[in-house]
Amino acid sequence: MATETMENRSISPYGPARATVGGNSIGKDEVALMHKYFNATLYLCLGMIYLRDNPLLREPLKLEHLKARLLGHWGTDAGQSFTYIHFNRLIRKYDLDALFISGPGHGAPAVLANAYLEGTYSEVYPNISEDMDGMRRFFKQFSFPGGIGSHVTPETPGSIHEGGELGYSISHAFGSVFDHPNLIALTIVGDGEAETGPLATSWHSNKFLNPITDGAVLPVLHLNGYKINNPTILARISHSELEALLFGYGWTPYFVEGNEYSSMHQAMASTLDHCVTQIREYQQKARRSGQAFRPCWPMIILRTPKGWSAPRKMQDHYLEGFWRSHQVPITDVRTSSTNLVVLEKWMRSYKPEELFDGNGTLIKELKDLAPTAHRRMSANPVTNGGSIVKKLQIPDFREYAFEVNKAGVLQAGNMTNMAKFLRDVVQANRTNFRVFGPDETESNKLGAIYEVGKKVWFGTYLEEDEDGGNLAYEGRIMEMLSEHTVEGWLEGYILSGRHGLLNCYESFIHIIDSMVNQHCKWLEKCLEVEWRQKVASLNILLTATVWRQDHNGFTHQDPGFLDVIANKSPEVVRVYLPPDGNCLLSVMDHCLQSSNYVNVIVADKQDHLQFLDMDDALVHCTKGVGIWDWASNDQGCEPDVVMAACGDVPTHESLAATALLRQSCPSLKIRFVNVVDLFKLVSHATHPHGLSDDEFRAIFTDDKPVIFNFHSYPWLIHRFTYMRKGQHNIHVTGYREKGNVDTPLGLAIKNETDRFSLAIDAIDRIPGLSNSAAAVREELIDKRIRARETAYQEGTDSEAVMGWIWPF
Amino acid sequence: MATETMENRSISPYGPARATVGGNSIGKDEVALMHKYFNATLYLCLGMIYLRDNPLLREPLKLEHLKARLLGHWGTDAGQSFTYIHFNRLIRKYDLDALFISGPGHGAPAVLANAYLEGTYSEVYPNISEDMDGMRRFFKQFSFPGGIGSHVTPETPGSIHEGGELGYSISHAFGSVFDHPNLIALTIVGDGEAETGPLATSWHSNKFLNPITDGAVLPVLHLNGYKINNPTILARISHSELEALLFGYGWTPYFVEGNEYSSMHQAMASTLDHCVTQIREYQQKARRSGQAFRPCWPMIILRTPKGWSAPRKMQDHYLEGFWRSHQVPITDVRTSSTNLVVLEKWMRSYKPEELFDGNGTLIKELKDLAPTAHRRMSANPVTNGGSIVKKLQIPDFREYAFEVNKAGVLQAGNMTNMAKFLRDVVQANRTNFRVFGPDETESNKLGAIYEVGKKVWFGTYLEEDEDGGNLAYEGRIMEMLSEHTVEGWLEGYILSGRHGLLNCYESFIHIIDSMVNQHCKWLEKCLEVEWRQKVASLNILLTATVWRQDHNGFTHQDPGFLDVIANKSPEVVRVYLPPDGNCLLSVMDHCLQSSNYVNVIVADKQDHLQFLDMDDALVHCTKGVGIWDWASNDQGCEPDVVMAACGDVPTHESLAATALLRQSCPSLKIRFVNVVDLFKLVSHATHPHGLSDDEFRAIFTDDKPVIFNFHSYPWLIHRFTYMRKGQHNIHVTGYREKGNVDTPLGLAIKNETDRFSLAIDAIDRIPGLSNSAAAVREELIDKRIRARETAYQEGTDSEAVMGWIWPF
Repeated sequence: MATETMENRSISPYGPARATVGGNSIGKDEVALMHKYFNATLYLCLGMIYLRDNPLLREPLKLEHLKARLLGHWGTDAGQSFTYIHFNRLIRKYDLDALFISGPGHGAPAVLANAYLEGTYSEVYPNISEDMDGMRRFFKQFSFPGGIGSHVTPETPGSIHEGGELGYSISHAFGSVFDHPNLIALTIVGDGEAETGPLATSWHSNKFLNPITDGAVLPVLHLNGYKINNPTILARISHSELEALLFGYGWTPYFVEGNEYSSMHQAMASTLDHCVTQIREYQQKARRSGQAFRPCWPMIILRTPKGWSAPRKMQDHYLEGFWRSHQVPITDVRTSSTNLVVLEKWMRSYKPEELFDGNGTLIKELKDLAPTAHRRMSANPVTNGGSIVKKLQIPDFREYAFEVNKAGVLQAGNMTNMAKFLRDVVQANRTNFRVFGPDETESNKLGAIYEVGKKVWFGTYLEEDEDGGNLAYEGRIMEMLSEHTVEGWLEGYILSGRHGLLNCYESFIHIIDSMVNQHCKWLEKCLEVEWRQKVASLNILLTATVWRQDHNGFTHQDPGFLDVIANKSPEVVRVYLPPDGNCLLSVMDHCLQSSNYVNVIVADKQDHLQFLDMDDALVHCTKGVGIWDWASNDQGCEPDVVMAACGDVPTHESLAATALLRQSCPSLKIRFVNVVDLFKLVSHATHPHGLSDDEFRAIFTDDKPVIFNFHSYPWLIHRFTYMRKGQHNIHVTGYREKGNVDTPLGLAIKNETDRFSLAIDAIDRIPGLSNSAAAVREELIDKRIRARETAYQEGTDSEAVMGWIWPF
Repeated sequence: MATETMENRSISPYGPARATVGGNSIGKDEVALMHKYFNATLYLCLGMIYLRDNPLLREPLKLEHLKARLLGHWGTDAGQSFTYIHFNRLIRKYDLDALFISGPGHGAPAVLANAYLEGTYSEVYPNISEDMDGMRRFFKQFSFPGGIGSHVTPETPGSIHEGGELGYSISHAFGSVFDHPNLIALTIVGDGEAETGPLATSWHSNKFLNPITDGAVLPVLHLNGYKINNPTILARISHSELEALLFGYGWTPYFVEGNEYSSMHQAMASTLDHCVTQIREYQQKARRSGQAFRPCWPMIILRTPKGWSAPRKMQDHYLEGFWRSHQVPITDVRTSSTNLVVLEKWMRSYKPEELFDGNGTLIKELKDLAPTAHRRMSANPVTNGGSIVKKLQIPDFREYAFEVNKAGVLQAGNMTNMAKFLRDVVQANRTNFRVFGPDETESNKLGAIYEVGKKVWFGTYLEEDEDGGNLAYEGRIMEMLSEHTVEGWLEGYILSGRHGLLNCYESFIHIIDSMVNQHCKWLEKCLEVEWRQKVASLNILLTATVWRQDHNGFTHQDPGFLDVIANKSPEVVRVYLPPDGNCLLSVMDHCLQSSNYVNVIVADKQDHLQFLDMDDALVHCTKGVGIWDWASNDQGCEPDVVMAACGDVPTHESLAATALLRQSCPSLKIRFVNVVDLFKLVSHATHPHGLSDDEFRAIFTDDKPVIFNFHSYPWLIHRFTYMRKGQHNIHVTGYREKGNVDTPLGLAIKNETDRFSLAIDAIDRIPGLSNSAAAVREELIDKRIRARETAYQEGTDSEAVMGWIWPF
């Protein structure tokens, strides 16, 4: 596959442009103008990193003009800005609808500089005006306490991708162009970022893109050469390996390599033009014929020196073209007067006096190079997704209700009717709602959705696919065995103004702990940015939950994602654990209608007993926590014990425990409480959903034992209730990391969340009961032992035990 | 690059073998024997999934012979076993030292079958003997309550990789062969697994493998075609794309595709032989010349039908060659007598009566096909790493001490001396200790290690690398910008009997929450497996911590990994937050010597004031929590308040708060407590390190206000102390998810963990103080406002404030 020539082709970033696409597509004058614009952006980048005053160097540079603490990243800026301004040219030429995604993240100066020169920055922040004063403030705020960060944070107009954590640029980009047929996401992929797992697999997103109904992603893999302190892998493999890799990922890579400005401008202009033309041709071919297909979409490999345009060496050490230019390129300007002079000379080499007029405004002939209004990548409305989001058309969820005449009789899958509800949501919102999952949608019993929206698939088709494969070019379900990629798609889809749902096995959602973390942080920060409109919530349905992963064993048992979520800001996270199918419907409806949250819904996919009819479910879910009167016998008096549960399986066992207790100790007054909305438990002072202490007391009492059976690790409930007066009386059971291959009841017994253990817990904690109920206690212990023995002998739980729950 | 032929080459798994390497390397008789062995393994796989009795079908198959609940995965078994037994042949031919890593994980039956046929299983579990009774027990225990799981769990001899969570086979394999020059890790990569991010980037591990001092990984990408309910991407792209992809990753892919047994046996035998020969040639070339290089290592792409050897169709639906064969291939045998007959016929088609003798033992001529003793992949000692682990040679850490004559005077980087200590550990253990990190080792101030062990690098070298690049073929530091890959390497390295340390930015350790989770589960389960010897601990050093990521902003601030760790079993997790450099040395020494834990050490990398001399540090760290007498003035009486801190920056602020209080309210009796070992806080009943209630009371009191300044999210402390009698008096401050670009003090103030807020908290909580100290309180508020204003104006904290801490 490799030819000798390719194998030996230089991997140095230096020299005149070496490019796949030849030709001089722009005139000398235009090159000169573009280079001036390029210089303007680079000047601004340095200004942001160094200056707090004297922004245009109208005076000689002095110490007092510098920031006290120098921060920010220079290394990636030139390559990113170079790409940005060349795409500006094509936006104007072809009237493109585009956004810019900055994968390296730390290159915010490049993006900020362009947003400022295009005028967008001053429009959203009038204080940062297009003049000397504005520029001074623009510089000073950067990486400055109380200012803006060195990533493409939510404060940055045009950004939907912060890049603080690396690896998600491509998946975010794809998410943004799905169902946006005219949009192009110009996406810079850092070669550091490219080493991450999430990025490495996200290249395959091209197998899920429909050239008729989706837009296009144009990735620019920026071979900047270095990470913080190391070379990058992709910059140090042979030309033939690199070309093969991208071809293998399904892309057509076009190379632009070098550092010599004029030929690089020509090469980049020709190459980008070629790529955009290719994209439009593929789209037109598919759209005219109505026949979708998977082209080898074009992408660019841009190799430039790290820190391009910085001094090549400083004090005999490489700066440009080495990792030393990663962050602040010359660090000692505050202490070395020699280097202060070097910096000044360097900054003046961009000739700011020729770029900005007397007021400090970009001169008109440069200003004219940028697109205007919404064609500016910094002002594309999709990057403020909330400004274009359309309300979901949602059918009345009550029409999907299970008919429940008596609690604990009907056995049904909680997902069954909810899947039909989701199917109809898909049907009613065919261009702005998608369901995402890592190969588990069918396994998670959501297959009903396929009736109206199959799984998007642009791989080869085989005859077997006709046999229930449910694959289609024009599907609405997105499945790839990469939690990272599907989460990234969903985030991009939402942030660009649409709606969606991720379904995932509970234990493996931990794989994207960090991504969800970062999305929460993005949402929270958006609340502080006035011009950002609220986007749809990111909805996560966790199923195949711990209590029904008994058969898959220990690796599949981890309900701890809730602990990660609970650390995020109360403004942006919600957690729901509906106890049955009707509650799940109500909760799902609520989540789909909400905005700016990460909603986590935990519900098992197996068949379970149903408890509430739809009216009761709606009331219960609206309150979020409540006493189930029908399961309680403390009406009109103080209970002896509160049996509480949160989660479907825990509720089941807790009800069975309540029944056992009421049968064997009929004089006991038992109150049964169910929690749907987890944050109800925390103090109202801590979370807007939290109960006040009075409300909490009215439900849980201050002084009675509470036997709380929780879906997840028990300590989360202690953490939530530590300030409640009665907290010492709350005994919480939950998953205690005790697992193996087991039966459902066996697993519960191991963790003491089963009916017998719960009833014993109650007896042990109700004052004065331990003697009178000693025989009952013995019997419960005996039943527990027998239940376990049966399971271990037969391999399944006894139907008689599992089917029994509520005899009253 | 693509030729028409390659592009159009069939991607069907059916037909006679299509292979890159031709030739018939084995005779017809040997093929026949190997196929019988193959059949024996497949028969066992089905037996495990279906039978609880009548293991060799000596009687007609009846309902009562079946398990009540059918579980287990069939789809991947045949391909894995096919590879396994063909490698057995080469182990015997070349006397290879090899282990088997099963990426798909769910294919445990294939691995278990081979371990059983080789006799290893019966050696470690004598009850599972090589006869009919043993086989019955072997079948019944599989995926059976109280038995073993359907993944390659720790109970499986020969396994170091469970595969319950997908994506880590390649990185584990590389970890196991580093510094094991004669070892070959035969690694099955599932095509589902291959879609995950961690797997997709781990192919690049070949840029970090030294052919002289490391062994080799031979990946077999198994194009099984389907995941749970979807086709796989890699099985549905063109031949040329797939070949290019692997070539681009730096491998030489050899194809073996088809389903026709005899030609497939020939093709696999020739191809594996070719690959092993290649590996040995590359190794010999490098070893003879002493000149390391990066070959394009061979790997195999094996395309077979999913569920190979199952019926092609059942009731007009595809079974073999489709995703329906993923799990239990015929599900309704308990209810359909027709299908019970189909199953029996299928099982009998393997002719068990010809494979096993009258006792149910594998016949000798088949037995002879497997290697013996430690050459069996199921019995390779490296897969029971604890059995070969050598104790680390560790220099006396006390010799690296900072000289601390007075607390709070010396300003030094906590990493500085520890880096020298680690350097000398590297030097003293040049073949069994490595340091891992995602491009942050230098940034994390551990660069001193480079003096004796540079960074392993097998990418191209450029002239700039001479300028402090610290790259080498024979390095000891492993850096790739993939937390997943470096963690996977480390896990593989440890599980195969060596030692190591991962250093990582604190916030981004969340990226591998799930991997660490799974490693903890592996370790815990190993404790129940008698023959598993203890391995070295997995040590994680978290630095660039939240409190000094003020400048990088919100995305870099997340100390929540501790919450994830805290949910794991007390038997396997330890968390240390040393307050200064000498304590860090002591803690690191302790962790490096420990075994079978995941040790998490949290320590910031910036310069900090030093508190304890080495003697005190050693005593303090050994206790894990203690009163700092020198900072307390309650000697001999009950304190008015306990100022407690856990973590270096929190300790600093807490001491400063104590100083402020003692200066302005000299009559106050203040006790200062520092916590190093986080689990000291929980009840002794919960964690072996936990303090008893008496011990806890002796330090924290039962009834005095405790102002506890914590490094991480504050709620973790409440969770840990919820059972303590005085818990209502514990006021915890910590990171409350309030972040932005800030100064260190500014960030602390935002989260109320700064000295002023802490002192105010104390005043507000000490009974009777609020009036008398009202003026002090006002002054503190004023100071807090001024500190913040200064920071926001100047861009840095005032040296006068930050340098001040302890005047006594």
